[in-house]
This record gives sequence, structure tokens and C-alpha cells, in this order.
Amino acid sequence: MLSAAPMPIWTLKPRAERRLRGGHPWVFNNELAHRPGQVAPGDPVELHDAAGRFLARGYGHPHTLIAFRALSREAAEEHPWCSAGLLLRLQRAAALRERLGLGAASHRLVFGEADELPGVVLDRYRLHTADGAPAQVLVLQEHTAGAERLHAALLEALQTLVEHEAQRSAQRPMGAAGDAGAAAGWARTALVLRNDVSMRELEGLAKLPPALLHDPAGLDPARARIVLRAAGDPARTIALEADLLAGQKTGFYLDQAANVRMVAQLLAGSLRAGIQAAGPDPAPLRVLDLFAYVGQWGAQLSRVATAAGRAVAVTAVDSSAQALALAEANVRAAGGGWETLRADILRGLDALPARSYDVVVADPPAFIKGRKALPTGRAAYVKLNAMALGLLRPGGLLVTCSCSQLLDEDAFRDVLHHAALRAGVPVRWIARGGQAPDHPLLAAFPEGHYLKCWVGVAD
Amino acid sequence: MLSAAPMPIWTLKPRAERRLRGGHPWVFNNELAHRPGQVAPGDPVELHDAAGRFLARGYGHPHTLIAFRALSREAAEEHPWCSAGLLLRLQRAAALRERLGLGAASHRLVFGEADELPGVVLDRYRLHTADGAPAQVLVLQEHTAGAERLHAALLEALQTLVEHEAQRSAQRPMGAAGDAGAAAGWARTALVLRNDVSMRELEGLAKLPPALLHDPAGLDPARARIVLRAAGDPARTIALEADLLAGQKTGFYLDQAANVRMVAQLLAGSLRAGIQAAGPDPAPLRVLDLFAYVGQWGAQLSRVATAAGRAVAVTAVDSSAQALALAEANVRAAGGGWETLRADILRGLDALPARSYDVVVADPPAFIKGRKALPTGRAAYVKLNAMALGLLRPGGLLVTCSCSQLLDEDAFRDVLHHAALRAGVPVRWIARGGQAPDHPLLAAFPEGHYLKCWVGVAD
Repeated sequence: MLSAAPMPIWTLKPRAERRLRGGHPWVFNNELAHRPGQVAPGDPVELHDAAGRFLARGYGHPHTLIAFRALSREAAEEHPWCSAGLLLRLQRAAALRERLGLGAASHRLVFGEADELPGVVLDRYRLHTADGAPAQVLVLQEHTAGAERLHAALLEALQTLVEHEAQRSAQRPMGAAGDAGAAAGWARTALVLRNDVSMRELEGLAKLPPALLHDPAGLDPARARIVLRAAGDPARTIALEADLLAGQKTGFYLDQAANVRMVAQLLAGSLRAGIQAAGPDPAPLRVLDLFAYVGQWGAQLSRVATAAGRAVAVTAVDSSAQALALAEANVRAAGGGWETLRADILRGLDALPARSYDVVVADPPAFIKGRKALPTGRAAYVKLNAMALGLLRPGGLLVTCSCSQLLDEDAFRDVLHHAALRAGVPVRWIARGGQAPDHPLLAAFPEGHYLKCWVGVAD
Repeated sequence: MLSAAPMPIWTLKPRAERRLRGGHPWVFNNELAHRPGQVAPGDPVELHDAAGRFLARGYGHPHTLIAFRALSREAAEEHPWCSAGLLLRLQRAAALRERLGLGAASHRLVFGEADELPGVVLDRYRLHTADGAPAQVLVLQEHTAGAERLHAALLEALQTLVEHEAQRSAQRPMGAAGDAGAAAGWARTALVLRNDVSMRELEGLAKLPPALLHDPAGLDPARARIVLRAAGDPARTIALEADLLAGQKTGFYLDQAANVRMVAQLLAGSLRAGIQAAGPDPAPLRVLDLFAYVGQWGAQLSRVATAAGRAVAVTAVDSSAQALALAEANVRAAGGGWETLRADILRGLDALPARSYDVVVADPPAFIKGRKALPTGRAAYVKLNAMALGLLRPGGLLVTCSCSQLLDEDAFRDVLHHAALRAGVPVRWIARGGQAPDHPLLAAFPEGHYLKCWVGVAD
């Protein structure tokens, strides 16, 4: 990619530059007037408007609907694809997370387009280690051919970033305030490549098995204890077990952090009031965690309840025995009682008692992965939420999520409306959330918004 | 209203009942087939579908676009307008707030349609008193002719609710856990009527001056110290000064509580990281509070910063000298430094230093009060946000809100997109919020959603 061959210049049709000039990072294939030269999937491309003026540099794809993704809009930045250009982007992305106070716990370090690295997802998991020494696992996903073409340069940039961070940390005065701790150097960093995402097939790329690219310290990402903020007390951290090598997505759902916190606070307020009303020794709080995965919701909410002096019983439902084993460890470590149901949730919930849970969390994988799946996916969301409402006690909390980007907020509202009608359970919706701050949005790029989380009280 | 005259029965056109059956509380005037009888604005009406089947009871209006609003969908509930029916609704509304742990601090007790009381808004302000004795101010708004017709019955129901609460509180065992405290009885309750809202003119009602209907204990709502949750530590409460007789709306903006909390937590995380980076004695945090009103944002954020060991300087801008006097007291009590600018914000910010504030809060009144105002209102939001971005230092936080119901979330995103372009300041949006849990939403009734709050980091 970094050869000396002249770079292809693609030209937009008249007036097609408006969205890109406004900050949107994509060009669709029907917006291009000329694309001379042999451009292989992911090759560097320079983009001009119809009058021949420079617009952006990025990467092209000759066969996909999204024909171009911008890396740089600075004419002076001639090689945004090289490791120096990528390092600049990584540093900006890391600075944003640090500025927000997210750096010391696990966080998404790069969220594709919003961090000027289209097609690249990079999660940084801070590890809880037995001896307290800093360690981290970086999990990389390359969604596009262009992102995959950046692979070697990106790894070089990543190593440099991590080494700079360790140097900076070593220079920090002893006893500096705060909770960032020391930074893990490259020798205490593992790197996992998770290119097993179906989105890659749209780009003509193979789904690849997870790969451990770098792990000199033997950190064993398949058995990680990751550090997160405690949802009930964000000044503290907790550790959860996760499989960062073979688990879903990058091994954990960091995008839910703000929603877990939002629900933890609603629950804490509710428990304060409930304990007063019910006296000192009420029945355990019954939490149903649907699509529990490794038990993020169950564990964090258990911690909130036990901190408030209320016992908890978590019923976790998932189709994966491995995930449920991790969830059990996480919930038990948080003080929660535990009951497992391994089931296909859209079929197997008949055994659960109707209208009996205090909290039901429905946090499914994306049911809608393409436009064709909209009707069936929508129906699945209605079915799931109607079932969830039928299991919630009157006055209980429903926490319901959708990470299908194609189902927008208004369509999700409509899903919840129909689910409540089907269940015959009126709901008042008291809070709504989206993806966490380390998954930022560009106002010019609504496609970057995908996660919705609504919290309702059942009548 | 509670005369023995037969109740008018209005009949919908065929198929017009669908939205109402789905839970929407309104009927528009073009959906009615027959409305026999003399129905004065706000009179009780029974609604039938085209086949003559019972649908709802509520109140009608012969001249407005919204011709009918539902109070009850239970055929067996023959008199939802009487004080017993209204008491039932008040009790349900109060139970929801208590269950959510909102009861002990100030909260919106009734949010119109979402609480089965269309056109009625009722805020309950818990007062901080010198001797610690419980006291409260209830502030009532009647937005519609139907709500105004409920006035006498609603006051009767309110008094009963408050007396029941006081009895229940007196029966509670001494030393019960929790923080609800004792309930104020009717003798320790003041009642203010704030029918000075322009929305009433759509219904053919006069805007009336604020009225103190009941204040046997001399609580003096014009000089209230209201109890709120501390945004940085929701287990605690704080007191702010407000004028509940002549202040804007019902005297305070309770709808922002969840957003203030969301921003407080983002700020707390950011301060933890920043104090570590900058050492123990950095410059004061500079907060610009635009449309400061009584300083809710400035005071709550000051408290968060001072708790984190960081000094604060709040610059509050508002057009009202009375509001700024209250804001100053509230910010100073929270430990914040203070600078006032009395100005029309859309004109008078030239004197402020460019790109210099750590946090800018833009929380204006509704710029769009009707469809005709959409273009000019939209332009005003763009102008405000472009100015706000121009005042924010690189890396600073913009907190920007819109309470215009007609500007939906996507249109607000578009406003922010254009504001960033105009200011030449790229923004990554890290969090979004809406109205607080005591302003619940019905999924069937999107018209109930009005408040948007976006938080972004400026490049």
C-alpha cells in the first residue's frame, strides 16, 4: 500500500461533495463521476470534487456500496495511512478517553469513523492482576478491506502508543493523585485480532478465527479479569471475568457502561425507598438477565443491591454454557445469588414464573443486520419485549436494549409500544440511554449511532 | 361539571379509534363523526367508536385541533372527573415516584397525559426548613380547559392525598431506614397555581397571574429553599433557593435532574483524570452557564468540582436580575466562584473570551413554541450553539439542551451539526439525555417527549 506508485484520484459528481464537506466520512458508489486506475479493495485513494479540488484522502473499494471512506481532510497530510499518521489518530483517540476519565478502566480506544479510523475498532482491556502489576489486552477488529490494509502500519503505531504511555507513566511523580495507576508497556500488553465478524463479508473479506498476535507476558486473554468502573460508585473499579479471545465481539460489551450505570442509579434510588417501605429484611431482589453473556448487568446490579443491604437472586439466561460459567463467577463475586437457565430465549422462557421479577434486562445481540432483516428482526424485538414484560412483576423495571443500527430510536419506540400492547402490560418509560462516551458520535454521521436502551416501569 | 345532565357521547369515524386503542390519549377534530349536544370547552365527554362501542371518558373541546383527551378507558369507571377518580390518579402517580426513590426530594408529581391527567402539571417541592420540620410547596398548572374544569375536584383530591401521606408517615415505626423523612401534612403544605402559560391561549383560556391558593404555615413560596438530590452523590440532598411563585414555569426545572446528574458524573471522571495530569493546584474550572436561571447547573457542577478538590469559577448569563441573584446565592453556597453577566444571550456574548471555558452549558427556554416558529427557532438554536462552541476551550465540554417538543432528536442533531460547521469546531458527542424519570414517557404518545440534552467534547 505504501508503494511509490502514483495515488489514484477519484472524482465526485457535481454537488456530491456536500455531505463529505459537512464531516460525513463516506462516499457512495453512485456519487463518483470518475475512478480511473486499478484500485484494489482497500487501496489508498485521493478524492476530489467535480471541479478538481482536493477533498480527502482515504481508502476505496471498487465493489461495495460505500466506495470511499475518509481518513484525512487535510491536503497537507499526504500519508494518513502510514504509521505516523495512524499514531496521530491513536493519540487523539487516547487523549479523548483520558480527558473523560475513562483511561484507567477498560474502554473502547478507537471507534472507527468517530476516531478518524474508519473500519477500525480497538478495545483496551485493563487487567486485574494477582500482583497488581499493570497489564492490558488490546483487541482489534478490522471491518473493512481498507482497515485490513492498514494492519501492519496500525500495529506499529499501536506499539509506539503503548511505549509512549509507559514512558510518560514512568516519568510521573510518585504519589500523584488520581487513579490512573501505571501504564502497561508493550511487554505487558497482549494483542488479539478478532476478524471473525460477518460484516467483513460485505467487503469481500474472509471471516478469520480469533488470533493472539502478541502476548509476551503470557497474559492469557482467554481467561482475563478485566477492570471496569463500578456502576453504583464510578470512583471505584471492579473486575469481571471475560474471554477476550473467543467471547462475543471483542470479548465484552463496553458500549453498555453508561446504561449499566444509569440503571444502577435508578435501582439504588428505588432500593433506598423500598427498604424503607418494606423494613430491614425483604425478600431477595429478583433480577432476570436475558442474553446474560458474561453477566455484566447481573453482576453490576448485584453489587448495587448488596451495597444497599438487599439480597439479590439473579436468573441468567443465555444459549452459551461458556458465557454462563463466566456470568456465574461474576455474579457470585458481586454477592448475588445465582440461577442459570441455558436456553434459546425466543423459545425457552415458558418455564419462568409470570409477573414475578423485580428487574428484567433484555440485552440481545443485533436481530437486524441488514435491511432485508428489518421485518423479521422487528418482530423478534416485539416478541422478546412482550415476553420480558410478561415476566416482570407489577411495578418492576424493564431494561431493554437494541444494538441494531438500522432500527432507529423511533422504530424502537414503536417496537416497545407493540410489545406492551401484546403483553397487556402498560409501561411508563422513565429513562433512555445510548452507547457509552468511549463510542462517540459525530453529528454529521448518524450511522455511528446504534445502541438504544430504554428503562420502563410496568403497571 | 358534575351535574346530572346526560353526558354527551362523541363518535369517531370508522378506523379512527386505532391510535386511541393503542394508548394514545388524544382525538383530533377531523377524526370525529358526530359530536351531538352542547359541549363547552373542557366538558366531560364519552367517546365511542364508529360501531358505537365504548372507548374512553375524558373531556372535549369544540374549537381546538385536539378535540378530546382521555382520562379513563375503563367502562366501569363512570366518573373519572370526580375527586375520588382524581385521587386514584394522584395516588398512582405518587406511588411511581416513591418506587423510583424520588419521593424524598422535589419531583414532578403529575406529568399530564403520562399520569392519566391530561393538561395537568403538578410539581412537589420539598422544602429545606430552618427547624427541619417537613414542609412542601405544590405548584399546579392547568394547560387546558378540561384541566381547569377539574380544578375544584383536583384540589379536594390533592388535600386528601397529602393528608393520607401524613397519616401513613405518622404510623411508620420510629427509626425506619431510608431517607424519606416525615411527610408534610396539609397544614405544612403551600399550594401555588401557575396558570400564566401561553399554551392556555390555544384553549381559549386567559393567562392568569400566579396565585397562592393555600399557605397556612406561611411557607412563603416566593423565597423557597427546595430540596434536590446532589448530582454528584444522589444518596445525598442539597438545597437551592428558588422563587416558586413568580419564577419561570413552576419555579424550577426539575426535568433536567437526570441530565445534571449525567454531566456531573462525566465531569467527576474528567476531574479525577485532570487532577492527576495537572498536579494538585490547577487553575479554577471555568464554567459558563448560559440561560442560568437560578443556577441549577452552575451550583451542582460547582459542588462536584469542589468535592474533587478543584476550584470553580462560574460565569452565569441570564436576562433576569432576579434569577441571577438566586443563582449567585446557589453557586456561592456550593463553593463556586461567581461572575455575572446580565445579557440577552443571542446578542450579548461578544464580551466573553473566545475558546476559554472548560464547560459551557446552553439550556435555553423553548425557541420553538409552534410549527410556524420552526425555521426561526431552528436558526436560533444553530446560532446559540455556534456561539457556545466558540467560547469552549479545545477539549472542553459542551452541554446543550432543547426543550422544544417540535424539534425532534434528529432535527436537534442536525442543528448541532450546522452549529459545529459554523463555529469551525469539530465535536465528538459522548452522551445524550432526556427528561428526568418523574416526567415519564408513554411509547404510544411520542408527543410527551420534549427534552433533549447532548454532551460533546470540542476539538
